Amino acid sequence: MRAPHVTDLSGVDAAVYGIPFDTATSYRTGARFGPEAIRSASALIRPYHPVHDVNVVEALSIVDYGDLPVSPGDTQRTYAQVVKALTPIVEAGVFPVALGGDHSITLAELRVLAKRHGPLALVLLDAHADTWEAYFGQKYFHGTTFKRAVEEGLLDANASVQAGMRGSVYAASDLGTARELGFTVIESEELRVLGPQDYGMLVRERVGDRPDERSVRFDEVVVPGVHHNSDRA
Amino acid sequence: MRAPHVTDLSGVDAAVYGIPFDTATSYRTGARFGPEAIRSASALIRPYHPVHDVNVVEALSIVDYGDLPVSPGDTQRTYAQVVKALTPIVEAGVFPVALGGDHSITLAELRVLAKRHGPLALVLLDAHADTWEAYFGQKYFHGTTFKRAVEEGLLDANASVQAGMRGSVYAASDLGTARELGFTVIESEELRVLGPQDYGMLVRERVGDRPDERSVRFDEVVVPGVHHNSDRA
Amino acid sequence: MRAPHVTDLSGVDAAVYGIPFDTATSYRTGARFGPEAIRSASALIRPYHPVHDVNVVEALSIVDYGDLPVSPGDTQRTYAQVVKALTPIVEAGVFPVALGGDHSITLAELRVLAKRHGPLALVLLDAHADTWEAYFGQKYFHGTTFKRAVEEGLLDANASVQAGMRGSVYAASDLGTARELGFTVIESEELRVLGPQDYGMLVRERVGDRPDERSVRFDEVVVPGVHHNSDRA
Amino acid sequence: MRAPHVTDLSGVDAAVYGIPFDTATSYRTGARFGPEAIRSASALIRPYHPVHDVNVVEALSIVDYGDLPVSPGDTQRTYAQVVKALTPIVEAGVFPVALGGDHSITLAELRVLAKRHGPLALVLLDAHADTWEAYFGQKYFHGTTFKRAVEEGLLDANASVQAGMRGSVYAASDLGTARELGFTVIESEELRVLGPQDYGMLVRERVGDRPDERSVRFDEVVVPGVHHNSDRA
Amino acid sequence: MRAPHVTDLSGVDAAVYGIPFDTATSYRTGARFGPEAIRSASALIRPYHPVHDVNVVEALSIVDYGDLPVSPGDTQRTYAQVVKALTPIVEAGVFPVALGGDHSITLAELRVLAKRHGPLALVLLDAHADTWEAYFGQKYFHGTTFKRAVEEGLLDANASVQAGMRGSVYAASDLGTARELGFTVIESEELRVLGPQDYGMLVRERVGDRPDERSVRFDEVVVPGVHHNSDRA
Amino acid sequence: MRAPHVTDLSGVDAAVYGIPFDTATSYRTGARFGPEAIRSASALIRPYHPVHDVNVVEALSIVDYGDLPVSPGDTQRTYAQVVKALTPIVEAGVFPVALGGDHSITLAELRVLAKRHGPLALVLLDAHADTWEAYFGQKYFHGTTFKRAVEEGLLDANASVQAGMRGSVYAASDLGTARELGFTVIESEELRVLGPQDYGMLVRERVGDRPDERSVRFDEVVVPGVHHNSDRA
Repeated sequence: MRAPHVTDLSGVDAAVYGIPFDTATSYRTGARFGPEAIRSASALIRPYHPVHDVNVVEALSIVDYGDLPVSPGDTQRTYAQVVKALTPIVEAGVFPVALGGDHSITLAELRVLAKRHGPLALVLLDAHADTWEAYFGQKYFHGTTFKRAVEEGLLDANASVQAGMRGSVYAASDLGTARELGFTVIESEELRVLGPQDYGMLVRERVGDRPDERSVRFDEVVVPGVHHNSDRA
Repeated sequence: MRAPHVTDLSGVDAAVYGIPFDTATSYRTGARFGPEAIRSASALIRPYHPVHDVNVVEALSIVDYGDLPVSPGDTQRTYAQVVKALTPIVEAGVFPVALGGDHSITLAELRVLAKRHGPLALVLLDAHADTWEAYFGQKYFHGTTFKRAVEEGLLDANASVQAGMRGSVYAASDLGTARELGFTVIESEELRVLGPQDYGMLVRERVGDRPDERSVRFDEVVVPGVHHNSDRA
Repeated sequence: MRAPHVTDLSGVDAAVYGIPFDTATSYRTGARFGPEAIRSASALIRPYHPVHDVNVVEALSIVDYGDLPVSPGDTQRTYAQVVKALTPIVEAGVFPVALGGDHSITLAELRVLAKRHGPLALVLLDAHADTWEAYFGQKYFHGTTFKRAVEEGLLDANASVQAGMRGSVYAASDLGTARELGFTVIESEELRVLGPQDYGMLVRERVGDRPDERSVRFDEVVVPGVHHNSDRA
Repeated sequence: MRAPHVTDLSGVDAAVYGIPFDTATSYRTGARFGPEAIRSASALIRPYHPVHDVNVVEALSIVDYGDLPVSPGDTQRTYAQVVKALTPIVEAGVFPVALGGDHSITLAELRVLAKRHGPLALVLLDAHADTWEAYFGQKYFHGTTFKRAVEEGLLDANASVQAGMRGSVYAASDLGTARELGFTVIESEELRVLGPQDYGMLVRERVGDRPDERSVRFDEVVVPGVHHNSDRA
Repeated sequence: MRAPHVTDLSGVDAAVYGIPFDTATSYRTGARFGPEAIRSASALIRPYHPVHDVNVVEALSIVDYGDLPVSPGDTQRTYAQVVKALTPIVEAGVFPVALGGDHSITLAELRVLAKRHGPLALVLLDAHADTWEAYFGQKYFHGTTFKRAVEEGLLDANASVQAGMRGSVYAASDLGTARELGFTVIESEELRVLGPQDYGMLVRERVGDRPDERSVRFDEVVVPGVHHNSDRA
Repeated sequence: MRAPHVTDLSGVDAAVYGIPFDTATSYRTGARFGPEAIRSASALIRPYHPVHDVNVVEALSIVDYGDLPVSPGDTQRTYAQVVKALTPIVEAGVFPVALGGDHSITLAELRVLAKRHGPLALVLLDAHADTWEAYFGQKYFHGTTFKRAVEEGLLDANASVQAGMRGSVYAASDLGTARELGFTVIESEELRVLGPQDYGMLVRERVGDRPDERSVRFDEVVVPGVHHNSDRA
């Protein structure tokens, strides 16, 4: 998007950063090259959106913060690196926009965000709930992210909506677990019937049920839902 | 789909087999690599379907029977090879699922199926009716399959539905021939208006008109319609 | 489309010609190979359209006129070459069908067509209005075509419709300029609401407002709208 | 090579023509698109060769004769079509340059050439001798061409050289057959030791042994060796 | 290579097996699909080698043992799985041929082989020595394999030859470490001067220095050198 | 190469910069994406070269200066932009390393370098001499660069060597012109006979003949020869 490469966060509204990591992937890897590919393609993005009548570059100060450090082959070490590198961005009150990377990286980001804001509401559009206990013997993997997040107290599942779930999956329990954890789960067929308007209202209703003594701002709530997940097969 | 490679059919419900043949193709070949490509991609298939609430691997014994022998460059010899190799599968009462291969191979399969069950009802979703008399001087080719099948008495055209037909075609007679042969032909524009529900009912009505003294089971009727044709340009 | 390569225009209804030029492109080039690629793919086109019940090859004499001369790297010189080469086709009353090439070439074609027919009505389906004043310092470029065309008196903007405009764009003025020039501009969201029928009626209404002392035929009016623009990124 | 598309052979020295056929191929097809691809790539060819100091376009009248008719899926019918279409070129004394197409098409060309000139000397650079009796049950196939050619009396094997043969092959007899037919066979390892100069002398010696009462010109002898075979996997 | 899929090892001379693992890779992954790709390409392999005059399929009983189990994302767990699965092959005296997979998997194989045969001689043709201490903080990674192997006593470095080493590398110590570990290291420029004959003699000399009270067979010695490493960028 | 993006040149030895321009290309464009592709691939480059025993990153301060501004579609305007942007780099005594871009950009660079150092010696390894008068009517194009450079007095042709020239070309004069301009031209066949050592000595001899009152450093002389030209078809 031709944003300047800046690591000084003073006066910055939003920081785009890459997490070039795909070790926690069961099938086809390559999402480690996602940040590079998204940046390359973004050269064509133009800042004015005619429907919303907003020039995002004039309205906000957006910078390219570069890539966060990762350790290919080592998920847990990468989590620690992401937590360390992301904390100053979040502490500075800068809106974080991640370019992934496989789904597993979301857990590290939630650890940083929940430390500052408490349990978050998740608004997820995805084909899978990512609430398995383990996969290929791995507890920290691209299909286990949101079970770990609830277990670690990073998400308020009752304020969260997972929509677009569709098969084929391994078993009925694939979606059952997500519901047992408290998530509102909307399968693909339901979402199509629901339509954009009613889906939006449902999201507002769930997210709006959250405690308001903490002045949670809109951007912080939605963050986990805007991750650009590129580890699809 | 990670199914075991098995050629012993006892206790088997359905056998997947490849027919790696594309000689009878007018334009771009390559469907001979279709079975390999489908098997490779099927590694991602998961067995549970949430809408139908069925785990297909638990419900049925499905095996990968391997590829049937073919003769690249020789359509008629390949027909004889497919008939010989497919007969034991069909005679064992195993549900056959073919991975093609170009459209011409369907004729060989119909010869085996009709020998056991009599003329079959065809439920075809395709852009073309494949009822030409000949193409490039070839009587047995990917565009002539269903004319040959009716001529050989393998299909009950009055119980059959060809849907999704769309241009461009060579002449009005391209679809006219299919109708003259007795097929119910639903063009693409009609199918869009009809919708899935009414299309399903129309298919049931046509197929249901068939003689019932023969205990034709659902699977046998639909077989020719589930062929995975991959010889599109 | 397997049309004969003919440069003698007597008795010809329509001539297909390529303009293999992409110099006036800001991002990804390659449209200079568009004519070759379109011709190659057109080998699969069949002449009968079942919905309109017309065999276009029987109804019209269509020839492949080859490519017009161009100068890679030099937009203005190419314009002069296209004007010189296209004039005999238009003067012969043959319907011109261009295979582009980037958007900039349309200006050269409009110069030839307007010389014969006077200001033309434009029916454009595109994501952008192409009415910038300049881009990368270039007045003759793929994003400036229709501003230049109005300035040169080649288009009757009041009789023209630009539909499908959508973001992201640089500024609100991107579409504002097109409207100030007199074009009817239908944004993508409006077009989806409008639907094909009402869009068709609106086009007829606008185009029908044009002066009728010149016996402008339908084909001539629509010409600029049928350009096959292949310079999308 | 930007040669004109011409089918009138008067005054023509050499005619380039395509044979877009790949039915007789055991593994990967696609050579039917060879003529199109070679023509496209040839746009970059320039006519002057600095080492030989010759401008081939000034020295010879070369035309693009277009493609000969073929029947995809039917090797024998294609042979008949090639023989019929190629005969006028050869009878006119025009030097034929074929763009293949799989190896099987060479047999049809040899039938035309031998009819005019008698048994020919073959100068072949290839990895295989193509002298199998049959393959996949096919007598006319890409691996059987030169056995058929000797059997039909089209080649003078004693005046012919097959060089570059290398494994892996099915059996020792793969090359043994070629030698039994009378060909001089030079395996890949021998050819590397021999070097270009000695290979050239060996070819001249073999070809030079042929009867000289027929004024066989150099070009006619070498023809089968210059076929551009593109059916490699 | 169209070898039968067999897991019963009685009477088997050599077993080909895949290790579809690429987690321990610093840059471009994808080697997990290496076994599938090698098997697909091997369909063209023919069994007779004319220079060595051997038909490998007649001389040996070779089977495709399938893939060994792995855990994507977890190198150490994969090592344990490979050791467990490979042990019965090696214990049965069957010659193992691995299809990788990144370089890290060699360590697991050496653990199995050294347990049976004692420290092995390594004959490696590669661009890198893979003797780093760690990379991206990982001790078990594709660039650390042979340092670990020496440390674990799996290799007899004095009997081993690493040839083909070339830059660019990070530091002079990249090759220095290999030499300090005892390996004979032949850089790319030296290997080119040495030539195949002298290289072969040097390998025999080094390997021949090994203790002969253990009846080490040829295959066991060379095994680590025949791994098909496909994790190159 | 993971070099830092720096535009402050104090203390810098060498600056890598991109010129993403390919307008002056006759056939396949795309070199405008060359700088991005070279930077992406350079992530794998390691700084130590074992043969020369040098760590280039320790020996020199190398920075990535970013891309110079260009005007797609307008060669002359781009020349002016490159001259303006490159001058401060050259004036600062920083060694310039360009990532192209088509051959035409070299002329702009030579204008900057010759202004500081006087006429330069060119050491070119290429298949073409690029000394045409014009191409497609364009005087400033990828095939005319070095004729313009001599005409503008930017090169000392007598001190310059063009090596690797090979056909096919349009005419004998393609290389003749280069020789008439004073260049030493070594054709591809000669270069192969000459070998690296003698070629190096010939270059030193030619370049060494230049006046030595100006303290021309080696790097400045060779600059035009190290351009990474990526506009090959």
